[in-house]
Amino acid sequence: MSDAGVSPPARRLRAGIVGGGRGAFIGSVHRIAAELDGQAQLVAGAMSSHPEIARASAAAWFLERAYTSYDEMAAVEAAAENGIDFVIIATPNHLHYPVAREFLAAGIHVICDKPLALTVAEGEELVRLVEAGTSLFALTHNYTGYPAVRQAREMVRGGQLGEIRKVMVEYTQDWLLEPLETRGNRQAAWRTDPARAGLSGCVGDIGTHAQNLLEFVTDRHIEALCADLSTFVAGRRLDDDANILLRLRGGAKGTLICSQIACGEENRLSIRVYGSRAGLEWHQQEPNTLFNKPAGGAWTLLRTGQGYLSQSARAASRLPGGHPEGYLEAFANIYRAFIEDVRRVGHGESPLRDYPGVRDGLRGLRFIAQSVASSQAGSVWLPL
Amino acid sequence: MSDAGVSPPARRLRAGIVGGGRGAFIGSVHRIAAELDGQAQLVAGAMSSHPEIARASAAAWFLERAYTSYDEMAAVEAAAENGIDFVIIATPNHLHYPVAREFLAAGIHVICDKPLALTVAEGEELVRLVEAGTSLFALTHNYTGYPAVRQAREMVRGGQLGEIRKVMVEYTQDWLLEPLETRGNRQAAWRTDPARAGLSGCVGDIGTHAQNLLEFVTDRHIEALCADLSTFVAGRRLDDDANILLRLRGGAKGTLICSQIACGEENRLSIRVYGSRAGLEWHQQEPNTLFNKPAGGAWTLLRTGQGYLSQSARAASRLPGGHPEGYLEAFANIYRAFIEDVRRVGHGESPLRDYPGVRDGLRGLRFIAQSVASSQAGSVWLPL
Amino acid sequence: MSDAGVSPPARRLRAGIVGGGRGAFIGSVHRIAAELDGQAQLVAGAMSSHPEIARASAAAWFLERAYTSYDEMAAVEAAAENGIDFVIIATPNHLHYPVAREFLAAGIHVICDKPLALTVAEGEELVRLVEAGTSLFALTHNYTGYPAVRQAREMVRGGQLGEIRKVMVEYTQDWLLEPLETRGNRQAAWRTDPARAGLSGCVGDIGTHAQNLLEFVTDRHIEALCADLSTFVAGRRLDDDANILLRLRGGAKGTLICSQIACGEENRLSIRVYGSRAGLEWHQQEPNTLFNKPAGGAWTLLRTGQGYLSQSARAASRLPGGHPEGYLEAFANIYRAFIEDVRRVGHGESPLRDYPGVRDGLRGLRFIAQSVASSQAGSVWLPL
Amino acid sequence: MSDAGVSPPARRLRAGIVGGGRGAFIGSVHRIAAELDGQAQLVAGAMSSHPEIARASAAAWFLERAYTSYDEMAAVEAAAENGIDFVIIATPNHLHYPVAREFLAAGIHVICDKPLALTVAEGEELVRLVEAGTSLFALTHNYTGYPAVRQAREMVRGGQLGEIRKVMVEYTQDWLLEPLETRGNRQAAWRTDPARAGLSGCVGDIGTHAQNLLEFVTDRHIEALCADLSTFVAGRRLDDDANILLRLRGGAKGTLICSQIACGEENRLSIRVYGSRAGLEWHQQEPNTLFNKPAGGAWTLLRTGQGYLSQSARAASRLPGGHPEGYLEAFANIYRAFIEDVRRVGHGESPLRDYPGVRDGLRGLRFIAQSVASSQAGSVWLPL
Repeated sequence: MSDAGVSPPARRLRAGIVGGGRGAFIGSVHRIAAELDGQAQLVAGAMSSHPEIARASAAAWFLERAYTSYDEMAAVEAAAENGIDFVIIATPNHLHYPVAREFLAAGIHVICDKPLALTVAEGEELVRLVEAGTSLFALTHNYTGYPAVRQAREMVRGGQLGEIRKVMVEYTQDWLLEPLETRGNRQAAWRTDPARAGLSGCVGDIGTHAQNLLEFVTDRHIEALCADLSTFVAGRRLDDDANILLRLRGGAKGTLICSQIACGEENRLSIRVYGSRAGLEWHQQEPNTLFNKPAGGAWTLLRTGQGYLSQSARAASRLPGGHPEGYLEAFANIYRAFIEDVRRVGHGESPLRDYPGVRDGLRGLRFIAQSVASSQAGSVWLPL
Repeated sequence: MSDAGVSPPARRLRAGIVGGGRGAFIGSVHRIAAELDGQAQLVAGAMSSHPEIARASAAAWFLERAYTSYDEMAAVEAAAENGIDFVIIATPNHLHYPVAREFLAAGIHVICDKPLALTVAEGEELVRLVEAGTSLFALTHNYTGYPAVRQAREMVRGGQLGEIRKVMVEYTQDWLLEPLETRGNRQAAWRTDPARAGLSGCVGDIGTHAQNLLEFVTDRHIEALCADLSTFVAGRRLDDDANILLRLRGGAKGTLICSQIACGEENRLSIRVYGSRAGLEWHQQEPNTLFNKPAGGAWTLLRTGQGYLSQSARAASRLPGGHPEGYLEAFANIYRAFIEDVRRVGHGESPLRDYPGVRDGLRGLRFIAQSVASSQAGSVWLPL
Repeated sequence: MSDAGVSPPARRLRAGIVGGGRGAFIGSVHRIAAELDGQAQLVAGAMSSHPEIARASAAAWFLERAYTSYDEMAAVEAAAENGIDFVIIATPNHLHYPVAREFLAAGIHVICDKPLALTVAEGEELVRLVEAGTSLFALTHNYTGYPAVRQAREMVRGGQLGEIRKVMVEYTQDWLLEPLETRGNRQAAWRTDPARAGLSGCVGDIGTHAQNLLEFVTDRHIEALCADLSTFVAGRRLDDDANILLRLRGGAKGTLICSQIACGEENRLSIRVYGSRAGLEWHQQEPNTLFNKPAGGAWTLLRTGQGYLSQSARAASRLPGGHPEGYLEAFANIYRAFIEDVRRVGHGESPLRDYPGVRDGLRGLRFIAQSVASSQAGSVWLPL
Repeated sequence: MSDAGVSPPARRLRAGIVGGGRGAFIGSVHRIAAELDGQAQLVAGAMSSHPEIARASAAAWFLERAYTSYDEMAAVEAAAENGIDFVIIATPNHLHYPVAREFLAAGIHVICDKPLALTVAEGEELVRLVEAGTSLFALTHNYTGYPAVRQAREMVRGGQLGEIRKVMVEYTQDWLLEPLETRGNRQAAWRTDPARAGLSGCVGDIGTHAQNLLEFVTDRHIEALCADLSTFVAGRRLDDDANILLRLRGGAKGTLICSQIACGEENRLSIRVYGSRAGLEWHQQEPNTLFNKPAGGAWTLLRTGQGYLSQSARAASRLPGGHPEGYLEAFANIYRAFIEDVRRVGHGESPLRDYPGVRDGLRGLRFIAQSVASSQAGSVWLPL
């Protein structure tokens, strides 16, 4: 990072990306989300370890600098006068840790896909590195960027639900209904490979999103879990389905259900929270409505973009109500807060950290590890 | 029962009712459901042990004969030339067993509210009595009467879903959000009283409906369960919420969630079944649509009353598509099949038993008992 | 009618039916609706002019007395000690007028399907007869029986919507998508036959339901209309589709759209009312929810069976919230109010007339006539 | 425009913007949509005639060149070596014509907000200019950019609906429920000012979107209309509501309903098309689902991002199914096609014109003019 003397926001920030080369859906998502508000622009990338793909991917995005190794990129960018302000890590899971470590060591801010790393030990090391250093670290648990999710959290925090008693969170898909990993699908291959995905398939990939969303909205931690993980597709090496009983701090109970073989489901992420005074419900696939269920009264449909929402929910919308916003805009909200912090730190101000961070990532890794352990032990309750 | 020599259907059948006196919501439901098709009429009742309520309730329904004790009713009706053809039991749970036993002993056909009895032992005794006798026995697991539920079962049976892998069933309400049992609500009082409701509150009242619906639709039994029951309202003597992990015969896994403190929910009963080739989804609160989710294709909305449905689903509708049918019509479908069997038996034909019976009731009692036991043991897997 | 000296409600009322013989869907609807609350029972019928169908239909319903001509039925029932208290007219349209006239002349209360008659002149004559006589007259515009529709009217009347500005009412179906009238479908044959259906097909059959619902909910009359009627199916003799511009008393404007060739629609009847302070929306196919849209606030979902509804809406539900009620229950609400009036008149009390009556029927006939006239004149505004 | 010798896509295209200064919601929409795919970047702007707002707006977006007059901008950019490749017009309606004329004269490609101009005469002049010149011209009827709308058009074109018979299109809002134009709301002020908005308020602003969507999806023109325009808010100078009967080429009929005083509605744009073989339905507020209603079969829910969609629909999605895309992504699809054409023309290839153009804009102006004329003449049919 350079330009420390330039008073922001005199220019768009410069971003680099590791991974996300051609064909990787998530690469484009990061680029769009990072650039959506016109506050940053991708200028450098190590988008593939294949030199040709790396070059072609960088050219397709008009990047100024293309690398074939991330450590070279970290070194060169850190030294350059017009080097990147932050790096985006959009690789398969097993590379999150080494890449993050490298850029943190180079003093470059990091925004990284989830899960944080392959193992709890790696996660703990990243927590140590981030907390010992000065670089910012964000984890793209993107679903927390939705305006309605912000609204839900505010309502829980404001006590509108009363005592929280029951929670239901779900993330179901069907993209692994068939053994795609044996049929040439690259994402399926690494997602079901313990060496690249980690201890778990379904819980690691989407269960952690559900766990993070639940903790974000309810503003409290899962205290214990009792899990039943399954692998329904013959020959698959990791779980593709899980049913998990939950206990939360403060006495609430609940369930977390995730699946990648739920035939007909796309990205059915939903959350319900029931308190003593009201309930809430939200569905990612129709994200602009939040159902509010006051005790004894009629349900209300809280709609994003409306003036009656909380300040944080309103700030997370770019359009007036009725013009639907979706996944990319929510993802961009994570970037918006991160970029604001990059500017603040550049100014010498302290960061606001209004996005998931390295400790949220560590919780996700523990959630994975304990889910797997509980299930292997025959569905016993384990602390988290 | 009499009139054996009369060739049906030369007259409406005569029905009696025990329980369901003034103020009991479920009494009217049974009367409407029994009479809806014009094949039966209530003529006698022991609707309350309070003589005045019994008399007034019977008068309000223009019953010909009002009793204040069910044993007197059983004796008199069995002996009368124009006695009842069948009896409806609509009392609190603890009376199901003794009332059923009395009418079975009198040789009168019985249709009874669920759960079957207070205990597994009582249930086993009823199974013995029914199977040793000649009287018919139906249990009003009314949700299986919905046309869309019939359609769902046919699709599972016909193999359209392929191998069944994952199930999700839920029944959430909020009517016990507050401690109504201490505030003069009579139904809340007996529903939360172990002496009248049995081992469980929420699981016994609505969890069994969910369990029955699941087994009906999937056409297979729950093999094991791992339960976490809760009582959220202080002072309540029975559970008011439960989260249960399930394993089904044939390898499917799933969850059963029920609650009576889910703020804002009315009678949110829903079921999802995921197979290797398709998924299904149904919601009781909008019961005329069944979502069909074929692998790789678009969801289809199967609508009741339409010609493309299975024979059993079409037969369960009284109206063309788009004229919504609801709870009462579904309830009446249980009665329709039961009444048809009463006529068949009157003719000397063998019954078709296309309705929940005494063995389904026993499964429900075991489900309650094992759910409570699993939860008390710290959520261990128990067989069912 | 007899039994004037018997103090009601000592018995169920006795009803007769004209039309509705085997195969006529609407016959069963009337029977179920009339008997649903246990306050009346069908005992006599002239269900077909074919003697065999008449007999078989009556036997299938266990009627005590079967007639083959309605005038004989009127004469005999009026003279009998245990004669019917009221008659149900469920014939094709062209018979409404002569049958109603006959029973009114016999001093028997009448409840009749819509439209009231074939022509405005017939309708005017029926108004004269009813108002000159002592018999009650109800018209089964059944959709006004839905609890949510009652709630909507109360909200308009109570001023919650402010000044009414805009209305949108629709009733679309597809059952006449093909020329069924040439393929042996009996209902299609008479519905598209001017001699039996009247001036209009689609507007007469379902447009009048929409018009009646609109006037009921908004509590104001359509003042003028500008119509465009179409016949899309070649060879059809009456319209099967209409788009109509509306002006209401008090300055509101709107549209009424009806169709019987709207491919894929079942009975999509819906209404929206927009005022200066709130909007309302209701859909017949999911009838237990009423959308309330206060200016500047979130939509609320008003649900039938809930305590926060108006008295008249609550009284129109037989079940607690979340147990769906549908078409038959709404239809039965028309009967409930009519039967109450029959009892009141039997007592010498004055009737409450809380159901559509003969003057509503005349408005419907004028609506049909003016819609047809406007369309034939090239969509000119005509008064109503 | 310059860089003609540079072989695209060697760089992001350079865009300029006129209008859209601070506080104008639509400015940001254009910026995001233009830049979303990383193929263009805003570098110049005449964002306001107030020099300070112009400067501040340009600085907020890091534009390299800020102008205070659009004619200066046209002249300078046309002459500059690194001048803009295209200009975005995001001003109030009355400036569309003069600004467009200026940039067309300078040989710069134009993408312009709708409506095309203030009057039909202006529109005709623009058609002449565009067709006589070499510059591209796109009009941002953005709703045609939704993937599901592309799918709908393909299905109509492919004959899946059979003969088109009935259409229903609606665009209702409530943002002008109150006289905001008298309360300091700048957008309301110009939208209700004939000098800046044109002949019509509601029809001009959103009715034209509905008309364009209808013609786009059905692939046929409105042939005649019969309109009833209203102004419900006292003192307002233009219509705020309209109900319009339609006749389409080929014999279909329909309705177009638009309102800006429909209390509780946000941006409720929807379209239904009914053919002899199937029907279609789409709602902008939940844009990722298209309802397909085949005759005699069950509805199917076509979902964006799924492989079973048409090529043009799939190409319009950036995400897999279940990750909702919304208004901005659809808007960006208009830009994507326009930018592709700018590149093609730069190469010497002929443009594909897969976006609304100047002739679509002229149709919109005629639609406005004839709607106003029909209504003023008392709702007479006028050709379009």
